[in-house]
Amino acid sequence: MSPEQLKSLLSDLANGQSTVEETMAKLQRFPTDALSQDGGVVARLDTHRSLRSGFPEVILAHGKQFKHLKGIVKKALEHNNNLLITRLSKKRITKLTDLFPELQQAAGTRCLYRQTSKSKGDGLVGVFCAGTSDIAVAEEAALIARLMGAKVETYYDAGVAGLHRLLAAGELLRTARVFVVVAGMEGAMPSVIGGLVDKPVIAVPTSTGYGASFQGLTALLGMLNSCSSNVTVVNIDNGFGAGYVAGLINRR
Amino acid sequence: MSPEQLKSLLSDLANGQSTVEETMAKLQRFPTDALSQDGGVVARLDTHRSLRSGFPEVILAHGKQFKHLKGIVKKALEHNNNLLITRLSKKRITKLTDLFPELQQAAGTRCLYRQTSKSKGDGLVGVFCAGTSDIAVAEEAALIARLMGAKVETYYDAGVAGLHRLLAAGELLRTARVFVVVAGMEGAMPSVIGGLVDKPVIAVPTSTGYGASFQGLTALLGMLNSCSSNVTVVNIDNGFGAGYVAGLINRR
Amino acid sequence: MSPEQLKSLLSDLANGQSTVEETMAKLQRFPTDALSQDGGVVARLDTHRSLRSGFPEVILAHGKQFKHLKGIVKKALEHNNNLLITRLSKKRITKLTDLFPELQQAAGTRCLYRQTSKSKGDGLVGVFCAGTSDIAVAEEAALIARLMGAKVETYYDAGVAGLHRLLAAGELLRTARVFVVVAGMEGAMPSVIGGLVDKPVIAVPTSTGYGASFQGLTALLGMLNSCSSNVTVVNIDNGFGAGYVAGLINRR
Amino acid sequence: MSPEQLKSLLSDLANGQSTVEETMAKLQRFPTDALSQDGGVVARLDTHRSLRSGFPEVILAHGKQFKHLKGIVKKALEHNNNLLITRLSKKRITKLTDLFPELQQAAGTRCLYRQTSKSKGDGLVGVFCAGTSDIAVAEEAALIARLMGAKVETYYDAGVAGLHRLLAAGELLRTARVFVVVAGMEGAMPSVIGGLVDKPVIAVPTSTGYGASFQGLTALLGMLNSCSSNVTVVNIDNGFGAGYVAGLINRR
Amino acid sequence: MSPEQLKSLLSDLANGQSTVEETMAKLQRFPTDALSQDGGVVARLDTHRSLRSGFPEVILAHGKQFKHLKGIVKKALEHNNNLLITRLSKKRITKLTDLFPELQQAAGTRCLYRQTSKSKGDGLVGVFCAGTSDIAVAEEAALIARLMGAKVETYYDAGVAGLHRLLAAGELLRTARVFVVVAGMEGAMPSVIGGLVDKPVIAVPTSTGYGASFQGLTALLGMLNSCSSNVTVVNIDNGFGAGYVAGLINRR
Amino acid sequence: MSPEQLKSLLSDLANGQSTVEETMAKLQRFPTDALSQDGGVVARLDTHRSLRSGFPEVILAHGKQFKHLKGIVKKALEHNNNLLITRLSKKRITKLTDLFPELQQAAGTRCLYRQTSKSKGDGLVGVFCAGTSDIAVAEEAALIARLMGAKVETYYDAGVAGLHRLLAAGELLRTARVFVVVAGMEGAMPSVIGGLVDKPVIAVPTSTGYGASFQGLTALLGMLNSCSSNVTVVNIDNGFGAGYVAGLINRR
Amino acid sequence: MSPEQLKSLLSDLANGQSTVEETMAKLQRFPTDALSQDGGVVARLDTHRSLRSGFPEVILAHGKQFKHLKGIVKKALEHNNNLLITRLSKKRITKLTDLFPELQQAAGTRCLYRQTSKSKGDGLVGVFCAGTSDIAVAEEAALIARLMGAKVETYYDAGVAGLHRLLAAGELLRTARVFVVVAGMEGAMPSVIGGLVDKPVIAVPTSTGYGASFQGLTALLGMLNSCSSNVTVVNIDNGFGAGYVAGLINRR
Amino acid sequence: MSPEQLKSLLSDLANGQSTVEETMAKLQRFPTDALSQDGGVVARLDTHRSLRSGFPEVILAHGKQFKHLKGIVKKALEHNNNLLITRLSKKRITKLTDLFPELQQAAGTRCLYRQTSKSKGDGLVGVFCAGTSDIAVAEEAALIARLMGAKVETYYDAGVAGLHRLLAAGELLRTARVFVVVAGMEGAMPSVIGGLVDKPVIAVPTSTGYGASFQGLTALLGMLNSCSSNVTVVNIDNGFGAGYVAGLINRR
Repeated sequence: MSPEQLKSLLSDLANGQSTVEETMAKLQRFPTDALSQDGGVVARLDTHRSLRSGFPEVILAHGKQFKHLKGIVKKALEHNNNLLITRLSKKRITKLTDLFPELQQAAGTRCLYRQTSKSKGDGLVGVFCAGTSDIAVAEEAALIARLMGAKVETYYDAGVAGLHRLLAAGELLRTARVFVVVAGMEGAMPSVIGGLVDKPVIAVPTSTGYGASFQGLTALLGMLNSCSSNVTVVNIDNGFGAGYVAGLINRR
Repeated sequence: MSPEQLKSLLSDLANGQSTVEETMAKLQRFPTDALSQDGGVVARLDTHRSLRSGFPEVILAHGKQFKHLKGIVKKALEHNNNLLITRLSKKRITKLTDLFPELQQAAGTRCLYRQTSKSKGDGLVGVFCAGTSDIAVAEEAALIARLMGAKVETYYDAGVAGLHRLLAAGELLRTARVFVVVAGMEGAMPSVIGGLVDKPVIAVPTSTGYGASFQGLTALLGMLNSCSSNVTVVNIDNGFGAGYVAGLINRR
Repeated sequence: MSPEQLKSLLSDLANGQSTVEETMAKLQRFPTDALSQDGGVVARLDTHRSLRSGFPEVILAHGKQFKHLKGIVKKALEHNNNLLITRLSKKRITKLTDLFPELQQAAGTRCLYRQTSKSKGDGLVGVFCAGTSDIAVAEEAALIARLMGAKVETYYDAGVAGLHRLLAAGELLRTARVFVVVAGMEGAMPSVIGGLVDKPVIAVPTSTGYGASFQGLTALLGMLNSCSSNVTVVNIDNGFGAGYVAGLINRR
Repeated sequence: MSPEQLKSLLSDLANGQSTVEETMAKLQRFPTDALSQDGGVVARLDTHRSLRSGFPEVILAHGKQFKHLKGIVKKALEHNNNLLITRLSKKRITKLTDLFPELQQAAGTRCLYRQTSKSKGDGLVGVFCAGTSDIAVAEEAALIARLMGAKVETYYDAGVAGLHRLLAAGELLRTARVFVVVAGMEGAMPSVIGGLVDKPVIAVPTSTGYGASFQGLTALLGMLNSCSSNVTVVNIDNGFGAGYVAGLINRR
Repeated sequence: MSPEQLKSLLSDLANGQSTVEETMAKLQRFPTDALSQDGGVVARLDTHRSLRSGFPEVILAHGKQFKHLKGIVKKALEHNNNLLITRLSKKRITKLTDLFPELQQAAGTRCLYRQTSKSKGDGLVGVFCAGTSDIAVAEEAALIARLMGAKVETYYDAGVAGLHRLLAAGELLRTARVFVVVAGMEGAMPSVIGGLVDKPVIAVPTSTGYGASFQGLTALLGMLNSCSSNVTVVNIDNGFGAGYVAGLINRR
Repeated sequence: MSPEQLKSLLSDLANGQSTVEETMAKLQRFPTDALSQDGGVVARLDTHRSLRSGFPEVILAHGKQFKHLKGIVKKALEHNNNLLITRLSKKRITKLTDLFPELQQAAGTRCLYRQTSKSKGDGLVGVFCAGTSDIAVAEEAALIARLMGAKVETYYDAGVAGLHRLLAAGELLRTARVFVVVAGMEGAMPSVIGGLVDKPVIAVPTSTGYGASFQGLTALLGMLNSCSSNVTVVNIDNGFGAGYVAGLINRR
Repeated sequence: MSPEQLKSLLSDLANGQSTVEETMAKLQRFPTDALSQDGGVVARLDTHRSLRSGFPEVILAHGKQFKHLKGIVKKALEHNNNLLITRLSKKRITKLTDLFPELQQAAGTRCLYRQTSKSKGDGLVGVFCAGTSDIAVAEEAALIARLMGAKVETYYDAGVAGLHRLLAAGELLRTARVFVVVAGMEGAMPSVIGGLVDKPVIAVPTSTGYGASFQGLTALLGMLNSCSSNVTVVNIDNGFGAGYVAGLINRR
Repeated sequence: MSPEQLKSLLSDLANGQSTVEETMAKLQRFPTDALSQDGGVVARLDTHRSLRSGFPEVILAHGKQFKHLKGIVKKALEHNNNLLITRLSKKRITKLTDLFPELQQAAGTRCLYRQTSKSKGDGLVGVFCAGTSDIAVAEEAALIARLMGAKVETYYDAGVAGLHRLLAAGELLRTARVFVVVAGMEGAMPSVIGGLVDKPVIAVPTSTGYGASFQGLTALLGMLNSCSSNVTVVNIDNGFGAGYVAGLINRR
């Protein structure tokens, strides 16, 4: 279902032109696109929103059996919209690009995508990462934000132990509408950037590090306790989620 | 320092009218307002941003010795801007309102505030909470968002175990630019609301609950793992932070 | 909404006499009983299910501000059905029984209740606890199961370090339809009972213990790893939840 | 030992026809079927219950050395009853089906089984899962419930971020006697389903997810803190346990 | 039941003079001493072992409601044997000694006891503690070991940061049959003592410390990972358990 | 250094025939057997104790580089005493037995050993395990206890969900001087055995299990919180340590 | 024992003028100052080092019973050297200063001290803290460093969210030999300072914060994962330890 | 930027010869050496400090994609200074030494390095490790300290369970200016060494161990709670960081 449809439905509700009951009834009517395998439904694709709003469809590959994944991708490709597949292993990337040559690989990420409509690139999202090891996650954020129509600029390897590297990004710090900041280890970078700007900062902890980094838990906790009030946080290594919300904020 | 000043500074930088070095030098020049007690500086107030931008000054009372807190509040009240003091004990609320009658208590919260300038109430922030026990945190979010100039509507006690209660909030779900969703226990509400809207949802876990809720850790983890892509998360009970970011997004 | 109503609604749906949309619309129509304070809704009571089905209404007091709690209890008492209030402090028990003399205290628990309709006591629920310290939680389970119409027998202080104490409960082990087993410390009792019966066992970890019991976490983890396949688990100290599910199973 | 035997024994006890001592003595007499390897007993099969009650024998393969596992399976196959082997690696599935062609693989699970007696399929168990990644665990629950004589219907990929998908399952929500709900990530689905039905809901967290899902811990904690009172929980990925208890409740 | 009785019973079993069944039946016959309050059994005392073996009866006060505790103590005092009550608050110590003047307080511990039979003091148990803060737990261990008939010598405040203090305890290190070593903070002392002796060392972590000591968890983990092979561990602050096992080993 | 030497040294100290200083000086004199590789000392073998006391030398292979391990084993084999190497991978077992054919593999364990002196087998150690998956750890305990001169009897797969299996071990429960009880999952078996005997019980948690067993943490915590007072605990999977302490207690 | 004595002892050893044995023997001879209460030794003071080296004696009050603490303080005051007592409650501060008027309170800390010899103040230690709430811990570090002879300068409330506040401390950043950096919440400050200087930075996490700060655990983990290589860490709130090591480094 | 430059800059500031602004401006001017790949900057090398101060450049390989790592190493080798690459896999060591033959492998570590300038070896750093398994981490510490100009002596396999092994290191304990102590399992060695010396001790926990060692967490916690006041701690397995700080302290 598109945002326009939803708005219209709920406007009617708000204007007294329909009841809550009628509204819900209409909500029920939008069918999902069900994928059956082995005699049962294994996936219910929610394609309507993306189809009409220009949002990409997104498939989280992680944890899915390959036969399920393949079926879902095949079905999604039947629709003529932007598509993003995240958290793929190298092996699966190879298998899927063999099967579906229309899929492109985003360099340095674990994602595949198809872009059927180019956005005009309105608004600017700034994507920072603290170290070279965090680039894959940052690129995932940049990719989805671009697929959602944002202009994106990246600035990498600018950790807090070398402040002068960070300060050289003045232009980007000034002009972006929203920031995605990716960092592992102690995860301090969102706090420092958050103190320099008065825009929302979406912090992404990464599993980079070792020992007491606990696969990103330390960075996650650090970001949740940021002393900068403009920081919110997503799951460890969730570049996609951060880029998605940045895209939403940027669109407004 | 105001956003306007920052923009001007960084514009000059971007336009080649100043160097990175000159820019940083100017950044250095904005003095902080230092509070001395017992012969040493105990606080450095960063009042410039708020003074010119209409943002409120915010003081986190938690953990501060009372003599420090009192001094900071006194100094902050000297400036003619909106002021918010968070995470106060009942006893401190009484003591501060006795000392500073210009402070108002926000009903049901642990905050005091002074509002010197009324915002026009542009844009709408929707603040939801799952249970009656989460109201104090939700009210804190609503308060700061209002102080930042947002129109705020609240919808309380609408947890996921009774979906029909949530669905009755259709109008608010349709019209808000950004959502703050406050929940304890399993923290599922942001996922459900996130699935109903295509706006950013800022999730606030609360320490409500007992046993394996681990003072909000369970809700926090649940929200970080939300299956709705438009959800970002702040610290446990951090209604202030969520409201602040909602205010930022709403202003854009 | 009563189970009968729900069944009727969904029967119509199943029989093709109504559409999914109409069904949901009807679901929407059942109003909640909203409680307003300070100019806003602070609670939305879901009284319909309990009113018609004979289930008690249940209010979780923990975490609620007293003024909210008082309002909710008052409203709930207006309906003529069984009522249970759980997780009350001693002080709140005193204040509420002063305000509402129709409330009874369940000895040794942190609950208050009102019983307007006596169940016939159909079916038998066996409630066990491992040590004297676990009695309060066990009594809470017994209370709600009785309010839901079950006959309940209890057998207390029969921990696994003294097997002969447990084996003496042979009659109860034979005749109950479902078991609630409450234990702290290592939480081994549900496994042992689970091995002796072929009925569902609902395990309740308690926060009894010290040191590495971690306020019930150890018992909780032990129960989740039970080598008896008929054991399911509820939250630490959640006697209410265990008794509620036992009541549901017993009713079937 | 069969439930009938147990009932008879304990009836005698209850009626005064035997003493506690005589009862326990009889309990002792039921021999286990011991498997010896390398000159020692390595397993003691408890085959009696299953043989007479129609319950399947169940072997947890995880952690067992293959030579032990092989011996246990061989012995179990000598009895003429339903058999389920859980938590097998792909490699072990291949090796065991080569050795014992009478074993069948349950598609999409890590289980092997042999069904010697078909149940009539009395009563209905509803098995839900939140995402395609959770299907393997859900199928394990469905399999054991079927082996215990239940009719089972499944409804997959109906997570809380798309409520309309869930609401389309109205018929199943109305008619099942007990529900198994399988979910990873934030684990919110049991709460939502629990709010829609007045039957027991057995929640199964899965290790699906990444980062702060902590291999299912987040879903587990979420389910233990469910705001729906009819939810109980089993171990992470323990589809078997949930299906087993559902089978028990359904049989009553 | 006394150890002698148990031995006799099991001897008969071993010699073929009785069957397993008869043995269990006899085991069942030893009644527990049940305490009833409010119309139900709240405690089942297992007094037989202690009565005949000279072992003290032990009551863990922690977590018990006072009315239950009082009843249990009263009943235990009716038997003419050694008695130990552990984990009492100061307030409860006062109340119980007022009620039962025959109880003695063990200086510096949270225990009360009654000693009706003096042991001959056979064998030597060495009780060490690392710091002055650990004395209360160490004294609890010494007390129960003495009540079980051991001679006990203590050596306190001899932590590993001052090795010469520890080495001065040469005589005790040489002559004791078993050691109890109590330490908080990093819990290193059992490893060092374990390397100096070839006797069993029972390590007791204490909740002494702050910050990352996590109420004794750090000391507990350290002791479980001791590089000395003769170290076993009990729960945090469980001086009683350590002293009890030391008493058992010493008796042999 | 042998226990006899230590006794003699410390006797002199106790009798005033030497000073603390002289005693420590003598302690210093016992050289360790240093192994050099790559121009530095990489291991200092403490062979004296074992050489004279009949205790085996023990080498923990885990974590050591193979070249270090090989050197240490070679040096240890030069002495004519019992030797045990623990925590070997399959690959290392093969490589070491190829290099040193005098090493024997203990069936079902990850250990190699050489037995140069047979003990008389004095005293009885009872080794129990809960499930077939725990056998490898239990065998490790049995092996070291035997190398230390104990008679050992084992009783396997007797978990608490089938009490009658456990009760059939009456003879062993009666006659052993000390028990090693190995269990994974909820780790309840030591509590149950501890309640049946009045001897020390050394509990060994295993990493058997999945999900919320957290690689043995759940069993470990359960055992530390045992309601049986005669239970002490060693590290997860530390069969060696448990068998070693059992051997020490048995020797007394 | 003084460092000079230790050096002389070990020099003799190194020069062949004494054996290892003689050295240890001499080490043994330095008596500790034992405090007896209730007929047993409750503390062994290690006063020798401090007496001759000018280091203060330090007493950790936390966890000690008051009667023990009082005795230890009394004994320590008998020696004519600097004394520091840490982690005192307000009540204990009052009681001790009443008993021992020669003790001074360090403003804003939980410490008492007596300074008998003023150090010349050689070398400079820089003590920073991130927020006003961290001042008490920072002052504790400054106090001990001063008692050890360092010149100390402090710079407070300079957290990373306001970089310009930190950069204004240029002179101190340039001249100190070693830094103590105290921070709560995300604990990012040591990383930022560590990147600006090439001196050792000792990081002190504080328990300041709420929710997911977990009483300082988050700051602790962040500091351990610092991307600045010159950072080492002490326990949560351990201002004393950080100041002590800073004093040691400064003295070299 | 070299320390000398920094000093000069900040001296001017301190002497009033430049303003804070000018100082920061100059700080900004030092360019980083940016590495571009795939059309974007992937690393910003901070080579200035090392180039002029004789400190080695350090590259943390862990987590970096190989193409990034290769580019960074290539660029770093272009400068004529000492270089250290840490946390390399065996495979990467082979690949890099094939590509860059000027890199040397440090035996027994996961590091590569190039030494262009030999330090004079001023001052002494003592590096201890508890067991043979900890040598790789200890060697990493020794390597970096040597690259920073320290003389280093190592003393390995001297754990606390055999104190006489440790005491034989008297000469090294006496003469070193600073200690690095590496230990796994319970991590007790820093406390014992810390009690023997009055120099700073930098403790490095290792991931050596199994079960409840939790990959080094136990050792880490133990070291943070050391009862010796001269101990500070770095991350698990962070031999590099410990050696780096030891090098800094030694240089002073």
